[in-house]
Amino acid sequence: MGKTIGYAASDKTAPLAPFTFERRSLRPLDVKIEILFCGVCHSDLHQARNEWQNTRYPVVPGHEIVGRVVQVGQDVKAFKVGDLAGVGCLVDSCRTCPSCKEHLEQYCENGMTFTYNGIDKIDGTITYGGYSGEIVVDEAFVLKIPKQFTEKDLPGVAPLLCAGITTYSPLRHWKVGKDSRVGVVGIGGLGHMAIKLAKAMGAHVVVFTSSESKVQDVKRLGASEVVISKNKKEMSKFAASLDFIINTVSVSHNLDEYLQLLKQGGTMCLVGAPPTPHPSPNVTNLIYKRRSLGGSLIGGLKETQEMLDFCGQHHVLSDIELIPIQRINEAYERMLKGDVKYRFVIDLASLKV
Amino acid sequence: MGKTIGYAASDKTAPLAPFTFERRSLRPLDVKIEILFCGVCHSDLHQARNEWQNTRYPVVPGHEIVGRVVQVGQDVKAFKVGDLAGVGCLVDSCRTCPSCKEHLEQYCENGMTFTYNGIDKIDGTITYGGYSGEIVVDEAFVLKIPKQFTEKDLPGVAPLLCAGITTYSPLRHWKVGKDSRVGVVGIGGLGHMAIKLAKAMGAHVVVFTSSESKVQDVKRLGASEVVISKNKKEMSKFAASLDFIINTVSVSHNLDEYLQLLKQGGTMCLVGAPPTPHPSPNVTNLIYKRRSLGGSLIGGLKETQEMLDFCGQHHVLSDIELIPIQRINEAYERMLKGDVKYRFVIDLASLKV
Repeated sequence: MGKTIGYAASDKTAPLAPFTFERRSLRPLDVKIEILFCGVCHSDLHQARNEWQNTRYPVVPGHEIVGRVVQVGQDVKAFKVGDLAGVGCLVDSCRTCPSCKEHLEQYCENGMTFTYNGIDKIDGTITYGGYSGEIVVDEAFVLKIPKQFTEKDLPGVAPLLCAGITTYSPLRHWKVGKDSRVGVVGIGGLGHMAIKLAKAMGAHVVVFTSSESKVQDVKRLGASEVVISKNKKEMSKFAASLDFIINTVSVSHNLDEYLQLLKQGGTMCLVGAPPTPHPSPNVTNLIYKRRSLGGSLIGGLKETQEMLDFCGQHHVLSDIELIPIQRINEAYERMLKGDVKYRFVIDLASLKV
Repeated sequence: MGKTIGYAASDKTAPLAPFTFERRSLRPLDVKIEILFCGVCHSDLHQARNEWQNTRYPVVPGHEIVGRVVQVGQDVKAFKVGDLAGVGCLVDSCRTCPSCKEHLEQYCENGMTFTYNGIDKIDGTITYGGYSGEIVVDEAFVLKIPKQFTEKDLPGVAPLLCAGITTYSPLRHWKVGKDSRVGVVGIGGLGHMAIKLAKAMGAHVVVFTSSESKVQDVKRLGASEVVISKNKKEMSKFAASLDFIINTVSVSHNLDEYLQLLKQGGTMCLVGAPPTPHPSPNVTNLIYKRRSLGGSLIGGLKETQEMLDFCGQHHVLSDIELIPIQRINEAYERMLKGDVKYRFVIDLASLKV
């Protein structure tokens, strides 16, 4: 066992505050990682405030983790002390169901173990996330950080572990490539990654945003075209013109405005779940062009490694604002206002200050 | 030009009544067909009563047509006098857009011409359907009736031209085959064809119906299992167990009850458009297992021929009740009550009585 310090919420109204806890002693396949950087995902805030009504307190959020291996269990083969390593949203799954066998641990049919607020399958303890000094994870759920990334890149690598894979996986699943015309709806942590990744895959990327103020920045991120979604005339120019849309907006909105922009056979994939339902989509928008409305959840370990390697090759990183952990509560408030370009990342060196 | 008799609705409240009109003189690629049988689709009733607010009166419904070629234009190659022939929902399309080039005329981007209540692209006249003695159609939109079908089979072939292809196309598009577990929701003209076709494709077919009274009959049609959809305990046994669901119900209902039955990666395809929207589906049902909700519209000409050939090989026919055309108004009333197993077909010989 090893004492570590993290930041935890102790109930749904409490600000995050220092919390000392034990990480488990290493099992034969475990890797102990000193956490260097951890991205701040909107899920962290949902869980800290029990907005999904399933939080186990105290909760230590954080599932966009980059760090350095400081100890390995006796049977670990893939990592050695000193290696850079990443941990995303999952730290375990059943490993035997059809989805796990297909390397889709995120859809584990017996229940995957989330990096925080999960229950360890072996000892039944609650999992604690990356807003902390160290983490212990089975090597099968630890990612390798590609060699192309320098030390300086590491803060921008952290958000790839959730925001990156959540957008990469549907782009790949729906076969986005060189000849694709891809729509991206919503420009936050997820949306900005979707733009960069789709661009790196060679697609023509059309970005939809409600904010005039984001247009220049969205172009900088790699958008081929930017459409102000409130402008119906602009929107209508893109009718039936897109192969695929990734919709990252997690508040209720009119899906039909976007479904109509899909070509025959196109799919819009939702990666955000709104707290109140979207207005019911018009079925004729699906039937008349054989369109689909889909959903997607993060990605499996194999695909997450593939995504990291792809980002290494194409030098894709998240745009981030680095903060010390002491400013996490302020960051949550700014995140609620959309006041971040485009991901807060905690520098865990601040824990030692 | 040639005079023919049909049955038409002259306004939205009028019963269908005899109506004499002219079929066009044959263009070089036209085929004139003496209509033997015409299926009665629910769309016919919607159009006769202007329930889609786009009816051009008088309207002669009917798009499930089987007949015999009685005359051919000078350049016709695929048909000769005496051949059996079929006509479905479409009689023309632009033939040049990407969807037409892919043999998906049903998704023609410049507007396909429907068999009735459409506008002929050449002379601008309103198209009249199969509740009539003869029809003239470009050979590119005429289907061949497979040799395996006997004269006796022909009434049961007619509904394949709409109910058959509307269910066949999504079953093929979503790759239903020997190892598939397929759900069929709703047992009417479309649903009963979906059962027969999915069964013939080798799938394990699970049928969902609200009527206890249909259970035995649904098994006769080829269902492997029948579930009474009101029985939540029964429904829950099928959670995450189906690869694909074809949902033929065209009244508003809870889609989530069925989305939950899809395995990871599964799709539910809607082929019915309800007059009032379905309750908005729960996005987490899509995200958590990468499920999709799709739609599909009839099928292209190439696929319709493939479907007819498949039905010839597997001897798949619609279950029908043959009526003289004089009973069409009564048939509409019975159709509204679901009192038909499973499709009315008009015997056009009755026009000559």
